[in-house]
This record gives sequence, C-alpha cells and structure tokens, in this order.
Amino acid sequence: MSFAELWSGLEPLGRDPGTAGYRRYSWTPADAACRDWFTRQADRLGLTVEQDRNGNLWAWWGAPRQDAVVTGSHLDSVPDGGGYDGALGVASALAAVAELKAKNFNPERAVAIAVFTEEEGARFRVPCLGSRLITGVIDPASACGLSDDDGITLAAAMTAAGADPSLLGPDDDLLGRIGAFVELHVEQGRALAPMDAAIGVAESIWPHGRWRFDFTGRADHAGTARLADRNDPMLPYASTVLAARKLAAEHGAVATFGKVIAEPGGANGVNSAVRAWLDARAPDEETLAKIAAAIGAAAAAAAAEHGVMFDAAQESSTPLVRFDEGLRDRISGVLARAGITAPVLPTAAGHDAGFLAARIPTAMLFVRNPTGVSHSPAEHADQADCEAGVHALALVLEDLAGRP
Amino acid sequence: MSFAELWSGLEPLGRDPGTAGYRRYSWTPADAACRDWFTRQADRLGLTVEQDRNGNLWAWWGAPRQDAVVTGSHLDSVPDGGGYDGALGVASALAAVAELKAKNFNPERAVAIAVFTEEEGARFRVPCLGSRLITGVIDPASACGLSDDDGITLAAAMTAAGADPSLLGPDDDLLGRIGAFVELHVEQGRALAPMDAAIGVAESIWPHGRWRFDFTGRADHAGTARLADRNDPMLPYASTVLAARKLAAEHGAVATFGKVIAEPGGANGVNSAVRAWLDARAPDEETLAKIAAAIGAAAAAAAAEHGVMFDAAQESSTPLVRFDEGLRDRISGVLARAGITAPVLPTAAGHDAGFLAARIPTAMLFVRNPTGVSHSPAEHADQADCEAGVHALALVLEDLAGRP
Repeated sequence: MSFAELWSGLEPLGRDPGTAGYRRYSWTPADAACRDWFTRQADRLGLTVEQDRNGNLWAWWGAPRQDAVVTGSHLDSVPDGGGYDGALGVASALAAVAELKAKNFNPERAVAIAVFTEEEGARFRVPCLGSRLITGVIDPASACGLSDDDGITLAAAMTAAGADPSLLGPDDDLLGRIGAFVELHVEQGRALAPMDAAIGVAESIWPHGRWRFDFTGRADHAGTARLADRNDPMLPYASTVLAARKLAAEHGAVATFGKVIAEPGGANGVNSAVRAWLDARAPDEETLAKIAAAIGAAAAAAAAEHGVMFDAAQESSTPLVRFDEGLRDRISGVLARAGITAPVLPTAAGHDAGFLAARIPTAMLFVRNPTGVSHSPAEHADQADCEAGVHALALVLEDLAGRP
Repeated sequence: MSFAELWSGLEPLGRDPGTAGYRRYSWTPADAACRDWFTRQADRLGLTVEQDRNGNLWAWWGAPRQDAVVTGSHLDSVPDGGGYDGALGVASALAAVAELKAKNFNPERAVAIAVFTEEEGARFRVPCLGSRLITGVIDPASACGLSDDDGITLAAAMTAAGADPSLLGPDDDLLGRIGAFVELHVEQGRALAPMDAAIGVAESIWPHGRWRFDFTGRADHAGTARLADRNDPMLPYASTVLAARKLAAEHGAVATFGKVIAEPGGANGVNSAVRAWLDARAPDEETLAKIAAAIGAAAAAAAAEHGVMFDAAQESSTPLVRFDEGLRDRISGVLARAGITAPVLPTAAGHDAGFLAARIPTAMLFVRNPTGVSHSPAEHADQADCEAGVHALALVLEDLAGRP
C-alpha cells in the first residue's frame, strides 16, 4: 500500500468542483466518506478500527494496551481548504504502518492511528473539538449545545450521523493507554524551504484565541436615512478590522477577521447587526491578551462613535504549548542517524497534538510546504516530500515501538 | 371593505417569526401568497386581475382602455423589511377603490391597480425590475440571466412559479393605456412629522446607483501566514467602507455598504475574496458620479496597498426623476380643496413611479412615517394616517377618473 495509492483514494472526497477546495465538515456526508475511506484502508492493513465516545477514530495494530505509540491527525477541513492539512498526517500514518508491515517489523509497544474529529472548528466553531473532549478541556454539555450556521447542534448532528452524543466527555481510559503521540502535518508557513529541508520537528505552538464580536445597530433605508441619524454597525466593524491589523503588526502577532455576517444583509439597507469573528495568535500569552484587549477597546470606541452596541465573547482559548523535550530529542536523534535534516520550528497553527501535549509526551513532524500557503485550495506539498515524511514517520514509529 | 380589514389579511404574509421582519422575495412562496391575497381582494371588489408579461399584476375597474388612471405599488420586501413599504400603497389602492365604489362613484376613465414585481431588487439585485422591464429600461435577456444568491436565475424562478420568462420585455400596448400613474407610499425619512402633516406629495427622486465591489486576494491560514505575506481582501474592504461614509458626508449624499460576502468566510482563515455592494444616492447626478468615482478610487488604492485585486461593476443606475408638474399641481389642488395639508417633498428612495415617470404623467403621495425608520421591522405608520392616505388617494382618483 503506497502513499500515492492511498492519496489518490482520499483526494477526491469532499472536494468542491467549483473552487477545487475541500469542504469536509464534521458529521456531514463528506466526513462520513472520509471516515469510511480510513476504515477500509485500516482494514486492509489488518488494523482494528474503533470509534471512541467523542467521535474520534482509532485503528489499532494489535490489541489496545498501555504505553501505546499513537500517530495520526484529522480529516476535516476549513471551508474551501487544501487537501493536505490533516489528511496528509492520516494518509502518512497509514503508509508508515504499511512500510513497517512490509519489512515485517514486529512492534513491542501497541501502535495506533488516530483520526480526531472537528479539528478545524469549521462547523461548530471550536477547533480541536475531538481532542478537547477526550482530554476534558471542554465540558460535554457545552459541546453538545454548540451549533452550526444552520442552528444544528453538535448533539443533533452526531445523532443524525449515528453517533451517541450522551457519551461525549473525558476518556481517561483511552488516554491512559497512550504512551506517546506523534502528529505529522503539512508545514503551514514557509520556514523549511529556505533551509532546504523536507522535514521539520515542532518546538511549540503559539497561544491562540477566537472571539465573536457583535455590533448591533438599527436597520434602515440606504437612501432615506440621513447619515447622522444612522446606527450603522458596518462602520465600527470596518474600523475594528483596520485596528486589529495595526495592533497585531505592532506586537509581532497575527490577527484576522475571516468570517463576517451582516444582518439582514440587503444591498439597499443599513444593517441591524454585523457579527464578526476575530482570530488572534501571538508568541506568548501576555502579548495575546494585550492585543485582544486593545482590539476590543478599539471596537467599543468605534461602536460608541456610531451609536452602535458592541459585545465580545471569547469562543475559544488555546494556551502556549511546548512539546515534550525528551521525545523531541529522541525523534531528532532517529532522523539524524538516518541522515535526515529536520530543523526544530515553532508554529502558529493549532493542532490536536497541542491538547494531547498537556497529558502525554507529544511531538510533531512537519512536511515542507514550498509556497507556505495553507487553508486554501492552493495548499501544496511535493510528492517526494510526502514520501520523505512517510519514511521519517516510519523510522520514528519503529524506534518508539521497537522497545518496551 | 375597510383599510383595517385589508391590512389584517396582508400583515401576516411572509413575516419571519424570529425577526418580525418581512421576507417577501419575488417568485417565492411568500410572494405567491401576497399575489393570491391581492387577487382575492380585487375579485371581491369586482375588479378583473391580469398578470402582464413581466409578472406585474393589474386589477381593472371596467375593461382596460386608453387613458386609464392607475394607482398601486409593490408587495415584495427587502430582507427583514417593514410591513408598510410597498404594501401600504397596494392596500390603500384597494381601500380607495372600495371607498369610491361605496359612494357609487362611476369613473369616466378606466381605473386600475398595479402591483409591480421585484421592486426592492432583494432577490435578483436590480430594483424596480417589473417597471424597468415594462418600460424597456432593462434588456429582457439580461433580466432572464439575473441570478439570486443560490445561483437561481430569474428565468428559472419565474418558470418554477408558473410564469413564462420568454415573454419578458417592453410592453408598449399596456403602457399606452395608462393616462396617469399615482403611487402611494409610506414616507421614508421623517419630513412630514415636524410639519404636522399626514400626507405629502413627491417632487423628485434622487439619482441612485448600485455597484458591486470585488476584492480578490488569496486564501491563507490565519495563524501561520505572516501579515506581510498576506493578500487579505477584508482590509481594503474595511478601508472602503470608511472612505464611502466620509465622501458621502462631505458631498451631502448617502453611501451604504449593506451586503457583504466573505469567501470562503471561515473564522480561522484569510479570505480569498470579499464581495460587497455599494448603494449611493445624491441630490444630483454630477455629485453621485463624483462620489462613486472617489469611492472606487479609494477602494483601488487600498486594494493595491494589500496586493489585492479590485474590480467594480455598476449593477444599476437610476437617473434623477422630476415628477410631472401638471399632475402634481392638480393633486395638490384636490387635496387643498378637501382641507388636506400636503407638503411637496423630494425623496432619496427609488420607486416604480420613477421609471413610469419617464413615459407617463406620474405622481406620488406619501403617508407620514413618525420615526422615519424604513427597511426595518421597526418601520411604522399610524392607523389614522393610513386611513387619511386612503381617503386622499380616493379623492385624487375621483378627480382624475371623474372626467374624460
């Protein structure tokens, strides 16, 4: 079972023919097609697939037992995302197990491949939902009540997909079996290309927050309402977008307004409300808190200037993650002995590995992204680099699982 | 048939229970319900209802013939609009005919009530579509190809609703029968209340344009893409919103961004595109052209600064309308003789009357709007003022239709 063969089966699933981007949202038919593909490939490898109480999939090489070496990633996507984010880690895990099986490797420790659900938060707005649930970082009742843009709750979506939301919650039994977790992921950003390296190893993940900003004004006629009489929520929203960019740049951080909903959104009316989502990340938690507060203050001031109400609610918060140094050094050693140059890098992208890192020795491998573009149909990794990633992951699993 | 009775039948149709706003979009089930209501009321009055080739309804008092006196308005709404805009003119027309019939008035000229389709442009983005089509201001092939947010074309929507889009186009036979058109409409803005007047007469309509602004950048990851590497279309959009407000204020005009679509619109990504619609109106055509050009230039400059492509397309253009002075003076005389104070006012709102005015002596009556709020669920007119409007319209129809 080659990487190329695996990839060609996964590549068409959930891809929009118009944009060529992926729309693999959790608990939808596209998600079910991805899960089915994973289960069939794991079956072919002789792995045993289980769905845990939180909707994550686990393919076990041998019986589940203590001190297992786990690899994997996620199969869901952002709206019109690329094909590599998450999917590369899952396909590479399958291909690495196939490589080890082909050389008749006999693991001393149990090995498993995990597929986490709703990593992107594209449907229910909380990223890494599967790993948050398993580690108890989000309350299962709150998770059940999360709703998508159509008002469908996670509980209803899971039920419709044949899963039981009453079982959601921390799973210490399952976590207790994992001795180490290694997630392979396509690089996001462009650090490896200038270093001429196909593979990198993660050092840390920047802290990250998502806030919902609600600007509430008053609907009115775009012709007859005098400018001075308006309470137009689009104006403070626009000021806030520009303030966020400026504040992020001043503090070496990033801030983005990607999602915005104008209500009622007619072309010939002043809106009653504009709802927008701020995504902000910074090298450390103090800086992140500082810029988030400053952006909120800028929004409140702009809203007041236009007689618009402003309210902000933090929808997610992810602290700084430093990956396990011992595991990282061991992985660096394995790769170095195989002649593979693998620089150690920080990242500003969130990952399930970040949540597992709080409980389990965890590491990440990155595969070079030649353009740095991510969360876009233009996201790409060269086939040779993907194959180098599979081989590197196989070496790491062989080392970790080769001794008790 | 009282105004109150008519109103209570129309009021619930197409109203969203959540927002209490109306969503009467053309060629939808809500629109069909409004058309059906109109046809039933006209039947009760003994009028004969026809749907013209462009989807407008005509209820004739007596056989259609030359030099007819026509009143009416529209029944469609903006998203979450108020109940009075358009609907008040149609209900008042029916109630005015009922008042004249109750006093056994026998018209010398034919009288008709017209209901124009897609006046708001809420579904297919071109306002006053029914009156544009009948007067030949829009090409029928272009109209057929207009599409809504779901990509459904006008032709497909009409076909689904049982109408034949191949018949769309100028209708000189029908126009040739109309000797005068008088549209009653709820006031938009708040000029009558300070003058203590329940009724106004229109002087002119400000010129009005709608433009689509497309900002095309590159989708990217909200965490890992460096600010300097981004081509984020939200940033020039935000600058343009603020520039439009400033330029409109400086020139005594109005400019509004009500509709905005971010693509793909994920909360944790930089968008590939932001599409937004500018609505601008000014007291004269030179000023309108000047501010539209300046807003476009501001958008182009902001886009260039962020490496984003910018493209603008004008979707609609409505020149300054001056209503027929002879007809206006005659109406003012009728109302003055009945002791009704009816100030003459300009308006910045577009109306089907504006398109008919290019071909037929046309006038408008306004009914006081005590708050001035329009295109909003909060839009309101007092019952007594609505009844005063019905009576004023009946007096005008009696005068116009009373002599050949």
